[in-house]
Amino acid sequence: MKLTKEQQQEIRDQQSQENKTKRVTVAELENILYEAIPILDHGFIRVIDYMGDDTSIVQAARVSYGKGTKKVSTDAGLIKYLMRHWHSTPFEMCEIKYHVKLPIFIARQWIRHRTANVNEYSARYSILDKEFYLPAVENLAAQSQSNRQGRGHVLSGDQAKKVLDLLKKDAEQTYDNYETMLNERYDGSVIDEKQVGLARELARMNLTLNTYTQWYWKTDLLNLMNFLRLRADHHAQFEIRAYADAMLETVKRWVPITYDAFLDYRVGGTEVSSKGKKIIQKLISGEKVDVEKSGLSKREWNELMTALELKDKII
Amino acid sequence: MKLTKEQQQEIRDQQSQENKTKRVTVAELENILYEAIPILDHGFIRVIDYMGDDTSIVQAARVSYGKGTKKVSTDAGLIKYLMRHWHSTPFEMCEIKYHVKLPIFIARQWIRHRTANVNEYSARYSILDKEFYLPAVENLAAQSQSNRQGRGHVLSGDQAKKVLDLLKKDAEQTYDNYETMLNERYDGSVIDEKQVGLARELARMNLTLNTYTQWYWKTDLLNLMNFLRLRADHHAQFEIRAYADAMLETVKRWVPITYDAFLDYRVGGTEVSSKGKKIIQKLISGEKVDVEKSGLSKREWNELMTALELKDKII
Amino acid sequence: MKLTKEQQQEIRDQQSQENKTKRVTVAELENILYEAIPILDHGFIRVIDYMGDDTSIVQAARVSYGKGTKKVSTDAGLIKYLMRHWHSTPFEMCEIKYHVKLPIFIARQWIRHRTANVNEYSARYSILDKEFYLPAVENLAAQSQSNRQGRGHVLSGDQAKKVLDLLKKDAEQTYDNYETMLNERYDGSVIDEKQVGLARELARMNLTLNTYTQWYWKTDLLNLMNFLRLRADHHAQFEIRAYADAMLETVKRWVPITYDAFLDYRVGGTEVSSKGKKIIQKLISGEKVDVEKSGLSKREWNELMTALELKDKII
Amino acid sequence: MKLTKEQQQEIRDQQSQENKTKRVTVAELENILYEAIPILDHGFIRVIDYMGDDTSIVQAARVSYGKGTKKVSTDAGLIKYLMRHWHSTPFEMCEIKYHVKLPIFIARQWIRHRTANVNEYSARYSILDKEFYLPAVENLAAQSQSNRQGRGHVLSGDQAKKVLDLLKKDAEQTYDNYETMLNERYDGSVIDEKQVGLARELARMNLTLNTYTQWYWKTDLLNLMNFLRLRADHHAQFEIRAYADAMLETVKRWVPITYDAFLDYRVGGTEVSSKGKKIIQKLISGEKVDVEKSGLSKREWNELMTALELKDKII
Repeated sequence: MKLTKEQQQEIRDQQSQENKTKRVTVAELENILYEAIPILDHGFIRVIDYMGDDTSIVQAARVSYGKGTKKVSTDAGLIKYLMRHWHSTPFEMCEIKYHVKLPIFIARQWIRHRTANVNEYSARYSILDKEFYLPAVENLAAQSQSNRQGRGHVLSGDQAKKVLDLLKKDAEQTYDNYETMLNERYDGSVIDEKQVGLARELARMNLTLNTYTQWYWKTDLLNLMNFLRLRADHHAQFEIRAYADAMLETVKRWVPITYDAFLDYRVGGTEVSSKGKKIIQKLISGEKVDVEKSGLSKREWNELMTALELKDKII
Repeated sequence: MKLTKEQQQEIRDQQSQENKTKRVTVAELENILYEAIPILDHGFIRVIDYMGDDTSIVQAARVSYGKGTKKVSTDAGLIKYLMRHWHSTPFEMCEIKYHVKLPIFIARQWIRHRTANVNEYSARYSILDKEFYLPAVENLAAQSQSNRQGRGHVLSGDQAKKVLDLLKKDAEQTYDNYETMLNERYDGSVIDEKQVGLARELARMNLTLNTYTQWYWKTDLLNLMNFLRLRADHHAQFEIRAYADAMLETVKRWVPITYDAFLDYRVGGTEVSSKGKKIIQKLISGEKVDVEKSGLSKREWNELMTALELKDKII
Repeated sequence: MKLTKEQQQEIRDQQSQENKTKRVTVAELENILYEAIPILDHGFIRVIDYMGDDTSIVQAARVSYGKGTKKVSTDAGLIKYLMRHWHSTPFEMCEIKYHVKLPIFIARQWIRHRTANVNEYSARYSILDKEFYLPAVENLAAQSQSNRQGRGHVLSGDQAKKVLDLLKKDAEQTYDNYETMLNERYDGSVIDEKQVGLARELARMNLTLNTYTQWYWKTDLLNLMNFLRLRADHHAQFEIRAYADAMLETVKRWVPITYDAFLDYRVGGTEVSSKGKKIIQKLISGEKVDVEKSGLSKREWNELMTALELKDKII
Repeated sequence: MKLTKEQQQEIRDQQSQENKTKRVTVAELENILYEAIPILDHGFIRVIDYMGDDTSIVQAARVSYGKGTKKVSTDAGLIKYLMRHWHSTPFEMCEIKYHVKLPIFIARQWIRHRTANVNEYSARYSILDKEFYLPAVENLAAQSQSNRQGRGHVLSGDQAKKVLDLLKKDAEQTYDNYETMLNERYDGSVIDEKQVGLARELARMNLTLNTYTQWYWKTDLLNLMNFLRLRADHHAQFEIRAYADAMLETVKRWVPITYDAFLDYRVGGTEVSSKGKKIIQKLISGEKVDVEKSGLSKREWNELMTALELKDKII
């Protein structure tokens, strides 16, 4: 991640503000406000603004005139209760805004979470930066043989090098031709004064999907947790998970009580089907159960045993 | 609007906070933060929290690293442009949270605006206050003869008195019977120690629709403007308009540039149909047009002339 | 539930249609299309329209040119997989529309599910029917002592009678005064020709919350299941559950494969927290665990044991 | 647009269905159901399913037991009234589902309309087709000099040829390298049996933004009109407008009364600001107004004069 001097100065200017407010504030989150936290090779997330804290959830759940309660223990008990019982609306009372720089193919996954506000940098209006994502060698994995949307082992050094060369060469070439078609370079300088450039809204189509874009993305805490539950998960693609993991850290700073409840009841928890419940009951009562008697498919059986971390029972 | 001493103290406690923040703040809005602004006879709105200001709209529209621009005039020009051309997403980057006390029949209109976060006081869980809306005499209007969902002239003094008596008597009686069924008074005291009370989730059904409820309501600026456009309008029912008008004043304090653009392009503006445009063209060219030649119904003709404030042409 | 002759005829007219279509159709659901299925004392649900069937989910998940697959077993496997892994968007590809008559206090719970389309009968514009919900004697329950938003045992016969008398008398009286204020009866006849009536938008505030209203409610299958998961559950208030249970039956007719997966993975399943997983592991390995060692509160312990139906371990 | 024989057969199979239904049907729309309507060089839209017709809007607005009204004229009057007064919820009662094939950079614009259901072909799971958008020569426009997000005149033949060569060469090369990295061809054949392929979720990042993707997209009529209002407009990028125009034709077939009202009040209409209204009043009264006296910026003045088609007044 390289920021220009001007960008660095803009960030420092924001960070040097010291405003007074009657609103609730969160010191731990203020400490990293506006900071560009690096993700992947050129990406970042920055927390730009936030509304509310753990007490705001309690306050809204109680529809109270003042703050939540005076005791942290009472607040924690209520927040855990709300999380456990899917009383979701109080979590919508906190809001956070991020500035994110990310590859376009990840942006396309991300945007499928609809309940958020988004302003993306417009390649219809402006020229995109010459920055594209090239995976680190240890992340260049083969197609999984067992899971059609997963990764297998890491590619060998030779093949990895070949892949990286192709990715780099194609991204650079298509970007150069993007500039040629625009008749303009990234810095705004014209290439050939006697020529006109192709419309930006057209030229952009020549860029590859690993080109970086950026956006402001704002959401409430409930929908952020829905996002993180899916994207900070081992089923998620590594690249989006890198963003989600960093955002999870900001949640920890912002609303630590909610964060704990989220880890306990969502991230670290599991769902058990009606059939799965019966199997657990039998296992607890000491009965022998195997996949044949279970009524589950082999795949579903293994998913259950993995979720319960009963490794010896995975077949 | 009567607040208990405890409620008043809670509000004062919130208002006496002085926190430091690196976030943008709006002094004019901070001045009224947490304050209960009275609406109707027992209702209020309170601004509880907010995120962003006019510069946040510019910042998001530009996907910038720092604040919007340095010059207010440039910001104002951009905000007007965004408003005029329905570039709506930057306005979603500001968020506001209200605590509202309002009659149930108004809450039912209000909730139809779906893009908001709501936590309502639960009458399944708690006992509602003994407070119900009784219109002021000057707002007791007859059914409009021309508009099936509107009001006509104000009722005569005698009839108004009779209506108010009925409303008051019925609300008090149904509330008293609500307490009787609960076997509990509003203050939590039990009426008859030897009896059990009906479940709260059932007893509440005996209350009338003018009973006050309250909620936390949080929305982004775009959806707030959509709400205000419909509800701070003369077509809106007087009672919800009273809330919308007070909220419009908070918008003025919060984002004054956006407020001006909103008044110019939405509230004070009008829409003209394809046929309406042709009529305006003819009128400007000096041609005589009347309803017959216009291709409009009488109703639509009058709506157009009213919108353009061409009073002499209304038929 | 009493329908007028005219309403009955309108329903029969709709049911006697026989149109040809190239769209997918579901015979089981067509059999009850438009039919008013009675709920509570005066309410009903009617399925008015639907889009798609089980194969539409498969078709969308595959983004296929034709139908889903030819084999039902393959479709079922995919639908179960989607349900288990929260791949939710394919379920949004089916849509259903209901006409519902329901008491206002239930309508207020219902409307909190925001991702749906709603058109409610307008009491600003029209006069509401003289119909209000009076619970059956066996549903008149006392306030629960252990759960602040639940019901305890059924009221004694005497107290039940007294409650019903109060509910009936208050609803009738407030309705009669509603007519008096309107100067108009439900059938449209004027009460006193020399008088004007109070505006409908005002008079309605005198009605009690058990008055029936009605609406058209349309939603996609995913959001319908989210609704049913919460409302066809034993934590839900009996009155809304009555509606949800009837709707669950329509889902069974409409998309039987999805219905089975929904029962297995959502309705009959459970969620287990991170701590809960550890307890299950210990129980399976034969270790003795009790609430003290568990790290759970007594309440949470009991919720887990109840979910797993380990009745002997509930304390 | 080339469909494989298998795809063509799948479409014919769907079209040859003849099912019976009690639901409302629209013969004009059934006539083109499932048909692939070509857009751009390889894209298409196909109407896959629909719910409701013009009478469904009336039915919901009236919350009626049967159909809307018997008379088309009454229905049309009500639909026009609803459209004019932004009574939007009845239009949500109709739903339509499309299968769309479109270039990725257009998909990215499209997806910003959030209130819709989407299932996109997954390049994490499958291999994308070797099809990319190459503009027709007459659509290869220069960047507009006056409008930063618009197009100017068409490129000269020489420059156009050069641009097309670059677009074609880059798309083909990046696609070939995509196959190389996957070690697999589009038809599923393996390139080098001794090698493993890069994970699909990674390899896709090498594709250019004009590569075609496809999705199922389902929305209600209100949100479809919101989409068309912005995208079937001359401010929209030509490529997305091509889709919107074709969809507008399907709306005409589906709900002809609503279509007429939409054209009159939305597409062909205009909005006038508060200041704009005053200028119109003066012009009608014969007063001379020019940009200086108007209080408008030059840009805004021209927008108003253009909207009113007062060409002689544009400066």
